[in-house]
Amino acid sequence: MRERLSVAAYKDGILEGNRFVLSRAITLIESNLERDAVLSRALIAEILPHTGNSLRIGITGVPGVGKSTFIESFGLMLAALGKKIAILAIDPSSQLSRGSILGDKTRMEALAHHPHAYIRPSAAGKSLGGVARKTREAMLLCEAAGFDTIIIETVGVGQSETLVKNMVDFFLLLMLAGAGDELQGIKRGIMEMADAIAINKADADNLQKAKAAASQYKSALHLFPPTPSGWIPKVKTCSAIEQTGIKDIWKMITEFEQHTQIKGFFQHNRQEQNLSWLHETISEQLEQNFYNNPYIKQELKQKEKLVAQGLKDPITMAQELIKGYQKKVVYNNK
Amino acid sequence: MRERLSVAAYKDGILEGNRFVLSRAITLIESNLERDAVLSRALIAEILPHTGNSLRIGITGVPGVGKSTFIESFGLMLAALGKKIAILAIDPSSQLSRGSILGDKTRMEALAHHPHAYIRPSAAGKSLGGVARKTREAMLLCEAAGFDTIIIETVGVGQSETLVKNMVDFFLLLMLAGAGDELQGIKRGIMEMADAIAINKADADNLQKAKAAASQYKSALHLFPPTPSGWIPKVKTCSAIEQTGIKDIWKMITEFEQHTQIKGFFQHNRQEQNLSWLHETISEQLEQNFYNNPYIKQELKQKEKLVAQGLKDPITMAQELIKGYQKKVVYNNK
Repeated sequence: MRERLSVAAYKDGILEGNRFVLSRAITLIESNLERDAVLSRALIAEILPHTGNSLRIGITGVPGVGKSTFIESFGLMLAALGKKIAILAIDPSSQLSRGSILGDKTRMEALAHHPHAYIRPSAAGKSLGGVARKTREAMLLCEAAGFDTIIIETVGVGQSETLVKNMVDFFLLLMLAGAGDELQGIKRGIMEMADAIAINKADADNLQKAKAAASQYKSALHLFPPTPSGWIPKVKTCSAIEQTGIKDIWKMITEFEQHTQIKGFFQHNRQEQNLSWLHETISEQLEQNFYNNPYIKQELKQKEKLVAQGLKDPITMAQELIKGYQKKVVYNNK
Repeated sequence: MRERLSVAAYKDGILEGNRFVLSRAITLIESNLERDAVLSRALIAEILPHTGNSLRIGITGVPGVGKSTFIESFGLMLAALGKKIAILAIDPSSQLSRGSILGDKTRMEALAHHPHAYIRPSAAGKSLGGVARKTREAMLLCEAAGFDTIIIETVGVGQSETLVKNMVDFFLLLMLAGAGDELQGIKRGIMEMADAIAINKADADNLQKAKAAASQYKSALHLFPPTPSGWIPKVKTCSAIEQTGIKDIWKMITEFEQHTQIKGFFQHNRQEQNLSWLHETISEQLEQNFYNNPYIKQELKQKEKLVAQGLKDPITMAQELIKGYQKKVVYNNK
């Protein structure tokens, strides 16, 4: 990484909307080095008062559903309306390799070159929780840099959707028509998280099938209980290629925003998200300290084996591990 | 509580199928006293090799769906087949008052007096996690006492279903027909946990409506992705009052058991459940130690306020709390 700036320099650059500084700041918060972490925390604390003024939209769907094409159409339409759009991604596969979603910027070439759009590939990291944290902080940096619409993309096959759901205001699930009963690999539970489902590729020969699928999903969603805000999840069809239905989806999202703003749910939801982040971070940190402890590393495997086979009671084993851990922690800190 | 027995006396009584001793043992594991906890752990360790030989069935549904009547019909049918049935409950409301589900045994009078059935009201407790632990251990004690079918009842309105789902082999959701779009108060996500839905009260004037509802749910469930075992959730109708459809539900459950046994999923699922219990217990214990610490109790409220209002970054606040906590723990243990 090139030389770091001072916190003040990062902050000033970001608040001026300088994309070069913004990118460097995101690289900073993505870093796993301890000294970068200290700088990151200071930067986030500084820019925090300048965040929150965007509409945060999560978009998910399995590979092949046309996410990139959709986001490009959607983003260009928003840019034409004068919106400033930042596009980030949470990519479960980035745990293994350098992030792949959005990594290939050429997939959104028109949008990538638009002066009102900013595209940032997914952060890599050892844990999905870590990647989520980095994405959330990148979102805050983008807000401070003046972006008023944040799109967070994820692949609807893992646990990343829950993480995205917990950092956005609106969650859109992209689907295809006629992919059979298997819901195209979407994980159980994701459909119930969606504020709307859009059946993409509703074009040419596929149009009728897409409309039929939409009406099927509509009646299925009707069987679900209402969302906490009282919003009833909508089902739309669209074609990113033919550019149809895209405006309608944006109209729906603005209706959602109004609906939740009036009821106070919009702010309430964000406060709850913030509190969740606090408590989740605490839990993560406590667990990380525990599982990284050398004594636990040594003892855990065998105890897991005994528990899985039903030879030992999980609660007894948990208590033994924690007792041993506490002794070690106190001993090592003396 | 009356005088405690020795671990050996509890164990021998349970293995002989002595219900009086079984009930006293369940009372013991439900106790919140420290010395009872020690005895409980020793007892669970002793009986563990004699557990696991039952089919564990979770049944949920909102109040009014007819759970008690259904379980009584279902239980009597199983008893007639020579099965030995134990019925336990997880009741979220028992956090506040003494458990209410199954508390009124007269609701299942015929079953309660059957020599092959054992009914135990829900345990009370301060936390749902604690109630779940007690229920899980009561289940193990019942298995050691020779019960081959365990039914765990819960109310489908809270978070207790996830806990039940994580301790049973088969999860049945009871529903009513014609209760409108609101899914009768069932929480989002519960439908996706069910291995089957039974539309209860499919009798008299209600029969046609129930059949229509069943076919609606069937096509909705079809849109869901398959369960990890490849089992496609089924939809049935039944009438606990007219005793129709009850045998069919049992037949389906035995089919499920065969399906998952052959594929090795049955055992795999139980091993995963055991490992989950281990890791969940560890997390719970770590969090409990943290949140009960006097320093954290004093600091948390104000930091939560700052985070909710967006004035402070949740991650920074979490780190500050954990750093302070670690200092206190080490200091207090010196």
